[in-house]
Amino acid sequence: MTISEFRLTRRVHFHETDAAGIVHFSVFFRYMEEAEHAMWRAAGLRIATPDAPIGFPRVATSFDFLKPLRFEDEFEVRLRVTGKTSKTLSYSATIEKDGTTLARGTLTVACVRRHPGEPMRGTPIPADIADRFAVAGPTKADG
Amino acid sequence: MTISEFRLTRRVHFHETDAAGIVHFSVFFRYMEEAEHAMWRAAGLRIATPDAPIGFPRVATSFDFLKPLRFEDEFEVRLRVTGKTSKTLSYSATIEKDGTTLARGTLTVACVRRHPGEPMRGTPIPADIADRFAVAGPTKADG
Amino acid sequence: MTISEFRLTRRVHFHETDAAGIVHFSVFFRYMEEAEHAMWRAAGLRIATPDAPIGFPRVATSFDFLKPLRFEDEFEVRLRVTGKTSKTLSYSATIEKDGTTLARGTLTVACVRRHPGEPMRGTPIPADIADRFAVAGPTKADG
Amino acid sequence: MTISEFRLTRRVHFHETDAAGIVHFSVFFRYMEEAEHAMWRAAGLRIATPDAPIGFPRVATSFDFLKPLRFEDEFEVRLRVTGKTSKTLSYSATIEKDGTTLARGTLTVACVRRHPGEPMRGTPIPADIADRFAVAGPTKADG
Repeated sequence: MTISEFRLTRRVHFHETDAAGIVHFSVFFRYMEEAEHAMWRAAGLRIATPDAPIGFPRVATSFDFLKPLRFEDEFEVRLRVTGKTSKTLSYSATIEKDGTTLARGTLTVACVRRHPGEPMRGTPIPADIADRFAVAGPTKADG
Repeated sequence: MTISEFRLTRRVHFHETDAAGIVHFSVFFRYMEEAEHAMWRAAGLRIATPDAPIGFPRVATSFDFLKPLRFEDEFEVRLRVTGKTSKTLSYSATIEKDGTTLARGTLTVACVRRHPGEPMRGTPIPADIADRFAVAGPTKADG
Repeated sequence: MTISEFRLTRRVHFHETDAAGIVHFSVFFRYMEEAEHAMWRAAGLRIATPDAPIGFPRVATSFDFLKPLRFEDEFEVRLRVTGKTSKTLSYSATIEKDGTTLARGTLTVACVRRHPGEPMRGTPIPADIADRFAVAGPTKADG
Repeated sequence: MTISEFRLTRRVHFHETDAAGIVHFSVFFRYMEEAEHAMWRAAGLRIATPDAPIGFPRVATSFDFLKPLRFEDEFEVRLRVTGKTSKTLSYSATIEKDGTTLARGTLTVACVRRHPGEPMRGTPIPADIADRFAVAGPTKADG
């Protein structure tokens, strides 16, 4: 059983808005990560555990913003696995409200080995994690 | 040489404001903590180091808000040591702008010993830390 | 129909943790506010609307921290209305996990009238809002 | 007099770190924006004013992360104007510590006209703002 897509439904909190009256752009990255972590839980995994010898730092990410989100808006994060290498996973995300796409993001994370006091070092994703994720097929939105 | 008071000057960042056009109330606690950590640095100390056997979690804190802060406001955090026991330090803080007090806060932190996988446990503040802090004398504002 | 109590269930997001491996103390204030806003929604109200002539800034708040929250912990915010005056509402909150109280907070908010370019000014809570909230009875935890 | 580049020096706050012991990736976007706003101030401008008829929402942004930042690290944000159209400004940013590049970001913002209750609409950047910014020349890092 593998997972390729995940949908998270969420409501905007007041502390996520800014003085322009909209969700601060940095918060969209948090929404995308929340969906990623929920996807890992749905796959029976935890992306971060205390004292785990490996971790998954973010190596690249982006967002394009089309329309704003406001306080108490209910929205959906649609996350898809778009790439998988021995050491990395890539996702795309759309933020949608009432069927309209508000923003599109991408995220690539790498598997690293952590030794206290040493720099993080890339390492292959353990098979019991990698086997849970499969690259999603194309969607109309990709066409 | 001990330290009892510290002043931190800071400007409001846009991501600290909310849709009411003012700094979100939770951010004042971050300002107070930033001043605390700067005071520790001024005392030649670091309050948190990786893999340190002890830490200083917050055990109680409060704020009264009199007037708001807005984007790009320059303000001052005036932090004072108000209490010291074998295992805790207490501070008071005022947030001031142009000589006007906007908010008053309090913070108590406790020294704990950390063992991976076990609950944190209160422990005496090491002498080389405790010796750096002295309770501040009364101020007119306390009168 | 009035509301006096509200329970919000929530899971800790990764971006809410800090380098001590626990939820940053400032985030508890955001949890309490999220419960407040959900309570207002449950009462058929919105606490903040664009261009509304009134608002509800926070005037005083506190938290006592007993035990930490960690990444992915599921917890409950139990919010109760503890006071009501013509211009203010007060709440208490407990943060609980698996039946254990982790933290206790308080919050008082005031109704203000907003005119662009002028300071906010206290004003009576409109009746259609005030009528929705009633002070909660005592609980065993208060005893 | 135009501005093309800006350097901001900053220290990592504890509340910006996460349970992996490093600055949360979403915070880098806040650092980049802080540098942008400081650049506008250096140009004699304010990017956001209450009740201003125009605003500068973010339309696209990205970051590549090479090495982490940790609590109390002192770092520099080097911001450069990389593009200018009638309605948009684009920047690149590098986050550097001790001469080493830790992360590279990009940001494009658009000028919009705001009417209460209506969607934001693209509008030309007013000349007194546009005239302050000039696209930076190439750097070795671009080569």
